[in-house]
Amino acid sequence: MKWPSHGANPHYLYEAMNLPVPKEKLDFSANINPLGLPPVLKENWSRLLEGVSEYPDPHGTILKRKIAEQEGLDENQVLLGNGGAEIISLIGRMLAGKQAVIVQPAFSEYEEACRVNGCKVQYHQLPPNWGWEDRGLSDKLKEADALFLCNPNNPTGTYYPRPIIIHLLEECRRHHCLLIVDEAFYDFLAEYESITQYIHEFNNLLIIRSMTKMFAIPGLRLGYLLANPEVIKKIAAFQPHWSTNAIALKAGEWCLDSESYIKETITLIEQERRRLFGFYQNRNLLVSPSRINFYLLKDPVFEDQYPFLQFLLNRGIIPRHTLNFPGLEGGWLRFAIKGPEDNDKLMEAVDEWLESRL
Amino acid sequence: MKWPSHGANPHYLYEAMNLPVPKEKLDFSANINPLGLPPVLKENWSRLLEGVSEYPDPHGTILKRKIAEQEGLDENQVLLGNGGAEIISLIGRMLAGKQAVIVQPAFSEYEEACRVNGCKVQYHQLPPNWGWEDRGLSDKLKEADALFLCNPNNPTGTYYPRPIIIHLLEECRRHHCLLIVDEAFYDFLAEYESITQYIHEFNNLLIIRSMTKMFAIPGLRLGYLLANPEVIKKIAAFQPHWSTNAIALKAGEWCLDSESYIKETITLIEQERRRLFGFYQNRNLLVSPSRINFYLLKDPVFEDQYPFLQFLLNRGIIPRHTLNFPGLEGGWLRFAIKGPEDNDKLMEAVDEWLESRL
Repeated sequence: MKWPSHGANPHYLYEAMNLPVPKEKLDFSANINPLGLPPVLKENWSRLLEGVSEYPDPHGTILKRKIAEQEGLDENQVLLGNGGAEIISLIGRMLAGKQAVIVQPAFSEYEEACRVNGCKVQYHQLPPNWGWEDRGLSDKLKEADALFLCNPNNPTGTYYPRPIIIHLLEECRRHHCLLIVDEAFYDFLAEYESITQYIHEFNNLLIIRSMTKMFAIPGLRLGYLLANPEVIKKIAAFQPHWSTNAIALKAGEWCLDSESYIKETITLIEQERRRLFGFYQNRNLLVSPSRINFYLLKDPVFEDQYPFLQFLLNRGIIPRHTLNFPGLEGGWLRFAIKGPEDNDKLMEAVDEWLESRL
Repeated sequence: MKWPSHGANPHYLYEAMNLPVPKEKLDFSANINPLGLPPVLKENWSRLLEGVSEYPDPHGTILKRKIAEQEGLDENQVLLGNGGAEIISLIGRMLAGKQAVIVQPAFSEYEEACRVNGCKVQYHQLPPNWGWEDRGLSDKLKEADALFLCNPNNPTGTYYPRPIIIHLLEECRRHHCLLIVDEAFYDFLAEYESITQYIHEFNNLLIIRSMTKMFAIPGLRLGYLLANPEVIKKIAAFQPHWSTNAIALKAGEWCLDSESYIKETITLIEQERRRLFGFYQNRNLLVSPSRINFYLLKDPVFEDQYPFLQFLLNRGIIPRHTLNFPGLEGGWLRFAIKGPEDNDKLMEAVDEWLESRL
């Protein structure tokens, strides 16, 4: 069976599992803000039409400046991309033929981008509770050119606070190694502590950001890289011209001003996470210690969650399988935190599952 | 001076030449359909909003199938891209460390994409009238892995008909060399003869297409590659996930059905080209033998067209400089064919120039 490598587009999952696609579906496999689009984007959508017939600014200067300003960085420390996925792909290109270590479990694109560029990959596997663990890392860094860390982590939702990052930055610098921190979900964290200022001090720090999760615009593709100007220049050379489309550039500007929407999102997610985690605990189901808008779930009666996955899919509830996350390999399912109504439906389906498997 | 590497976004050109940006501008530097967006896209723009909050289909299956059907190809012979520019960039990646020959003058991205990937580049320079000329090519192909041909040619607008392509395909096959034909402007040609069926016969044929010129959607980014399934698979491996955004995917579907709009465009461009070329001929100005929606113009009184360029820019008329086209190097200016009113303004400005330089 060829499993889809990512969430979203669930018909590919049904196809892979040879299941009929139900009429009503609820997709928990894509980690998108349950509030939907920021109001500014919905209200001004018609204005975006005028950007369609002109080439996008190949440097995305206006948006880049706005991001730089918000982060206390210089314009030449920012590179816009066609989604975080393009930034990862470009970093992989830069690392061609080199050696990388990936803290696992992690978003699968780091390994993909490395392997397709002939980069040798080693794993630094975190312990079963995904707490930070250094043991064995230093040895691996000796020969490595780059360390990938997804923080907050996808798929677990765990967050490694700033002191750990600073420790890793120093450790990586000692080994002449880049530290690539993917912060695709940083803006869902109530307790996030920015590490962008360390770019001034550490020229081995690369921070990947995505704007598609918080602002619910994955269809538009928008992400960026923060790093020192030399790295930015090197990576930009591999990027296709006009890579970030005009709609994403303009929408991105508007989204950056949506502060109250971000706050509202964080509050909603925290409430719903508490509600969901209480529910799971009452039923002796296991969850990952997530601080953000998705989590791992495990029915401890089963080592492999395939029966649970199949049960939910048949009811139109769509989790993300974890078969391509090293260390998880199907032993958990990942769920996005959606709005109250949708989460209710999920909890109903979980209860049905628990009854059915008695 | 750092010249912009492409047309469009004219403020970068004014900046490079240290000229004030006039209030009213007419941009002839981007070769976009003067009819503007196809009606179907304008009318249905609001419907595209719903695609924003979902991940695009990473395979773009619906659009890909539609293109395959129109071209008499199989789905696995098509790869969608984030504009033609991404397809070129991915081909450059595939050619990393190899040798390429570029028929010049040509769109500058082929050379860019090759060089950034450590690919050795040789030119096959066409004669002054840009008629097809084989001499010297076979020797270069002996060591080459790929030959790039832009057809119809950007920046000249000349078209090399099918027998030349078939001859090149055989010649390239004999030398175990890929033939990469960039057909970004093929749909502006009244007399175009499709070469897509040769993909079945020649596994060394790659055809690059763009949908942003004819359908006036450069802001959305949409292009594709047609080639044999092995090449498609190899190139797709280097492509970032979700590379073609959801708006472009949906807009692309609609555009493919806009047959009457294409016909209307071709008729308008032919009329305007005839009118412009008559005007230039009367004034002893030189034009390239273009068959499509842009052309090269030269005032033969000057070897370097810099004074002419500067004159027009000061009047808000924006040509494309040719300083980064090998064989042209500023000796010509490139102009898009726009609608009658805009072309009238261009002709007025040209007359002013001719009077002023007496």
